[in-house]
Amino acid sequence: MINPFDMVLFGGGGDLALRKLLPALYRAFREGSLAEGCRILPVSRRQSDVDQYIEAAHRALQKYLGDGEYCASSWKGFSQLLRPVALDIAVPDAQWEHLSDILGSDSQRVRIFYLAIPPAVFGPCCENLSIKGLITENSRVVVEKPLGYNAQTSDEINSKIASYFPEDSIFRIDHYLGKETVQNLLALRFSNVLFEHLWDAKTIDHIQISISETVGLEGRAGFYDETGAMRDMVQNHLLQLLCLIAMESPNSMSAKNIRAEKIKVLEALRPLTGALVDENVVRGQYVAGEINGGDVPGYLDELDGGTSSTETFVAIRAHIDSWRWAGVPFYLRTGKRMEKRCAEIVVQYKNVSHHVYDETAGNITPNRLVIRLQPEESIKLVLMAKKMDSLTTELQPAELNLTLSDTYDSFRSDAYKRLMLDAAANNSALFIHRDEVAAAWAWVDPIIEHWRETNNQPQPYPAGSWGPEEADSLLSRSDRHWFNAK
Amino acid sequence: MINPFDMVLFGGGGDLALRKLLPALYRAFREGSLAEGCRILPVSRRQSDVDQYIEAAHRALQKYLGDGEYCASSWKGFSQLLRPVALDIAVPDAQWEHLSDILGSDSQRVRIFYLAIPPAVFGPCCENLSIKGLITENSRVVVEKPLGYNAQTSDEINSKIASYFPEDSIFRIDHYLGKETVQNLLALRFSNVLFEHLWDAKTIDHIQISISETVGLEGRAGFYDETGAMRDMVQNHLLQLLCLIAMESPNSMSAKNIRAEKIKVLEALRPLTGALVDENVVRGQYVAGEINGGDVPGYLDELDGGTSSTETFVAIRAHIDSWRWAGVPFYLRTGKRMEKRCAEIVVQYKNVSHHVYDETAGNITPNRLVIRLQPEESIKLVLMAKKMDSLTTELQPAELNLTLSDTYDSFRSDAYKRLMLDAAANNSALFIHRDEVAAAWAWVDPIIEHWRETNNQPQPYPAGSWGPEEADSLLSRSDRHWFNAK
Repeated sequence: MINPFDMVLFGGGGDLALRKLLPALYRAFREGSLAEGCRILPVSRRQSDVDQYIEAAHRALQKYLGDGEYCASSWKGFSQLLRPVALDIAVPDAQWEHLSDILGSDSQRVRIFYLAIPPAVFGPCCENLSIKGLITENSRVVVEKPLGYNAQTSDEINSKIASYFPEDSIFRIDHYLGKETVQNLLALRFSNVLFEHLWDAKTIDHIQISISETVGLEGRAGFYDETGAMRDMVQNHLLQLLCLIAMESPNSMSAKNIRAEKIKVLEALRPLTGALVDENVVRGQYVAGEINGGDVPGYLDELDGGTSSTETFVAIRAHIDSWRWAGVPFYLRTGKRMEKRCAEIVVQYKNVSHHVYDETAGNITPNRLVIRLQPEESIKLVLMAKKMDSLTTELQPAELNLTLSDTYDSFRSDAYKRLMLDAAANNSALFIHRDEVAAAWAWVDPIIEHWRETNNQPQPYPAGSWGPEEADSLLSRSDRHWFNAK
Repeated sequence: MINPFDMVLFGGGGDLALRKLLPALYRAFREGSLAEGCRILPVSRRQSDVDQYIEAAHRALQKYLGDGEYCASSWKGFSQLLRPVALDIAVPDAQWEHLSDILGSDSQRVRIFYLAIPPAVFGPCCENLSIKGLITENSRVVVEKPLGYNAQTSDEINSKIASYFPEDSIFRIDHYLGKETVQNLLALRFSNVLFEHLWDAKTIDHIQISISETVGLEGRAGFYDETGAMRDMVQNHLLQLLCLIAMESPNSMSAKNIRAEKIKVLEALRPLTGALVDENVVRGQYVAGEINGGDVPGYLDELDGGTSSTETFVAIRAHIDSWRWAGVPFYLRTGKRMEKRCAEIVVQYKNVSHHVYDETAGNITPNRLVIRLQPEESIKLVLMAKKMDSLTTELQPAELNLTLSDTYDSFRSDAYKRLMLDAAANNSALFIHRDEVAAAWAWVDPIIEHWRETNNQPQPYPAGSWGPEEADSLLSRSDRHWFNAK
C-alpha cells in the first residue's frame, strides 16, 4: 500500500480532471489502493463553492464511469477525500493561504501537484507554489502534453518547471504508457526466451505503430490547427511506443535504466531531412466523407472555412540505426477521421526461410505479434498450425491471446489510475524524462521545418478512409501493407 | 477423394480389428472419406458365417464408438461394404479362392492387406497371397508392431514380407504418428519462423518424451514378460516421436525426405553401452500399489507368481550427436501402472539470459511447449506475461492453446482412420521405413544386451507412482525434473 498522499489537481474543474482524473482516483479508492488519509484537492477558479464542486464531481463520475462502476456508498466514501479549493492560479494574491492551510506543514507527507492546465500557466502556478512555500522535499509535479510546440518552446517549459522542481520530482505523463497492455508488452519482451531471441532484424521484417481516431477537431480547432498530427501525436505517443518496442534490454526495470534505453532509441532514429522527408513521410488532411454510415465534414469545414495546410494525418517510414534494427522499417501512422478508432502495434516476423510443405497445404502467413491498446486492450500472437481433423495437411493462422486473464476487462483498466498511483509511489519508470522530450523534438523538428520551407501541402483523404493513397505506397513499394483494424 | 479400394483385414475377428480398425473405417465412411465402391473384407478363421461376423462387427461398433458416433442408418450403409471371408490364413488349401473371387481381377484397383495377425503368420499369409496371385501391382500391405524381438528377428520378419512386397508397398504403422497433434507439431515446427529459430541447443534446455499407462498386463502376461517396456514401447513409439521432434527440416514433406531425416536422427543417437547404460537408463518393475484409490497387484502377482526381471518401466537420458542438439538431453520415459495415463512431449526452453525484473515480479518460469497426445490431444505454449490490472508488475505463466479449432474433439480424432486412408492414398509419409526399424533396434539392442550380461534387476516401484526414484535422479542430478501429468 502506498503511503497516504495529497493529490492537488490544478484545473480541477476542467475536462481532463472531470473525465479522466477523478474517475481514475475513484477507481483507485474503490479497489482499496488509496491508504486511509489520502486527500484530493481539486483546484478550480470557477467553482468557488465547495458543495457545488462536489456536486459537479458527482455528476462527472456518474457520466464517465463504466456500467456498474459507480456505487453510491463508494461515492460517499470517496467524496469525503475531496477538498475543493477555489483559486486563480495565475494570481499571487488568490487564496493560496487556504490551499496552504489544507496541505498543512508535514513536509514528509507526499504532495502531488497535477497540472491539468495549459502550459502557459505552468510558470505562474509553480512560482506561486514556491512563493507560498508549498513545494516540500516530498512534492512532485505531474504534467502532460502539449509540452511546447518545438524543441525550443518545449525546452522553455521544461526549464520553467525545473526552476522549481528537480527532474526526479517531475512526472511527465503519456497515458498510453499506463496501459496494462504496454506493461504486458514489456513483460513479454523481457521474461520470455522466445522473444529474447526473436526481436531483431534477423527475424523481424518490419514493425507498424498506428493510432487512428474517428473524431475530428472536437472543438479544439484553434489549438489543433496550430499543432497538427506530427506535434500532437507523433512527437509523443508514437515515439514513446516506438521506444518501448525497439529498446535494448535494460540492465533492470528501474526508471533510470529504462529511460537510458529509450533515449538511445530516439538518438538512433535516422534523421529525416530534405528529400528524405518527401520520400519517407506522408502528410494528409481529411476532406468530407462518411464514417459509420454518417456524413462527416472535411477539416476545412470544421475550421469554419478558410485555408490551412495543417496535417491531420501522418505516415512515416523510420529506421533505427543500430545492430538490432538495421534494415527493419518502422512504419508510424496516425490520423483523425479515419475508418476505425484503433491504437495497435504490429510486429511482423519474416516468413520461414524455406517452405517444406507443398502448395496443397496453403500459403504460410508469416508470424505476427499484434499489440492492441485501443479500443480494447489485447496482445495476440499469430502462428500457423494444422487445421485439425482434415485428411490432408492444411495450414491456417491461429490467433493466440496473450492477455493473461479470463476476467480481465480492458475497458475498465485505467491508465491514469496506474500512472497517478505510480507518481504517488515515486515510481517514474513509466514517465518521460526531459532528455526524451528533447530527443523526440530533435527528430521531429527538421521534418516540420522541411514542410515549412517547401510549403508542403497535405494530401487530401476522405473522412472514413485509412488516409491518403501515398500512405499505402509507403509500404506497397516494398511489398508490404498496413494491417488496418477490422 | 481417394479412389475406391479393397481393405482386406486379416485377423478380422481379433481385438485390433474390432476395437480400432472397424471403428476407424466406420468413421471414414460416415464422414464421406470412402468413395463409392470401397469394400472391407474382414478375414477370420473363427467366424465362418457372414451374418455372424456382421453381427459381431455391429456389436463392436456400438461398444467402441464414442457417444453419438454410432447411427443406425450409417451402420446400414457401412455394413453393405463388409464382405467377411472365413479363412485360415496359415493353411494353403483354405478358402483362398473365395477371397480371390471377391477381390476380382482388376489389377488397377487398390488392395490393402492389413495384417492384424501375429508376425509368426506374416510369412504363410504373404506366401498364400502370392501363390493365389492376389498381390497385384496396386497391392499394399500394412503391418504393426511387434515386428520382432531384436534387430535380427525384426530383420527376418521384414525380409519375409520383402520377398512378396516391394518396400514402397509396405506400410508399417505406428498409430502415434497418425494423431492430429503429431501432424500439428510438424506444421508448427516447419511453418513458423518462431520455431524455426527456436529449435536447437542454443534455446532449448532439454526435451521430455513420456508415455505412461495405468493398465497392467491386460491378459498379455506371456507376451509382455518376453518383451518388456524397452521393446514394447521405446524401440518404436518413443523413438518415432523423438525422430519427429529432433529431425532437421526436410527439403519437403515427402515420405522419402521425412524418412531420410528420421534415419539421420536415429543414427545420431549416442550409443549406450556398458557403464553408459547403468548411468543413463533406469529400469523398473511395479509392485503392488494403488491407482485412483483402488488396490492394484504387483507385476509378479499379475504373472501368477514366479520371478521375472522384465522391466515394466524405462527411463533414459539420450543424446543426439549433431550440431543442432549438442548438449541437449532427451529424456524418454514409459511405464505401466503409473499414476496417470498420459503421452506427452515437453520442449523445455532455456530461461531468459538475464532477469531485468526484480524479485517483486516473481520467478520467471522458462518457456515450454507441451504436446499432449493422450488422453486428450493438445499443444500448449507456456509464456510469461504480466498479471493484468495489478498495481505492481507481477509475472505469471500463461498457457496458450495451439490446437487450432474450438470444436475439435481430440477424443473423436482417430489415428487409425488417418493412417488407413493414407495407406489407401499411397501416402507413406507417416509410416516407418525398414531402415528406421533397423536403426532403432541397433540403438536399443545393446542396452538390453547389457542388462542381460550384467543380470540387471529392475528397480521396484509402487503401482500408481511415477516410477522408481532413480528415474527422478536421472533429471534431478542436473537440476531438472519430470513434468508429470496432473
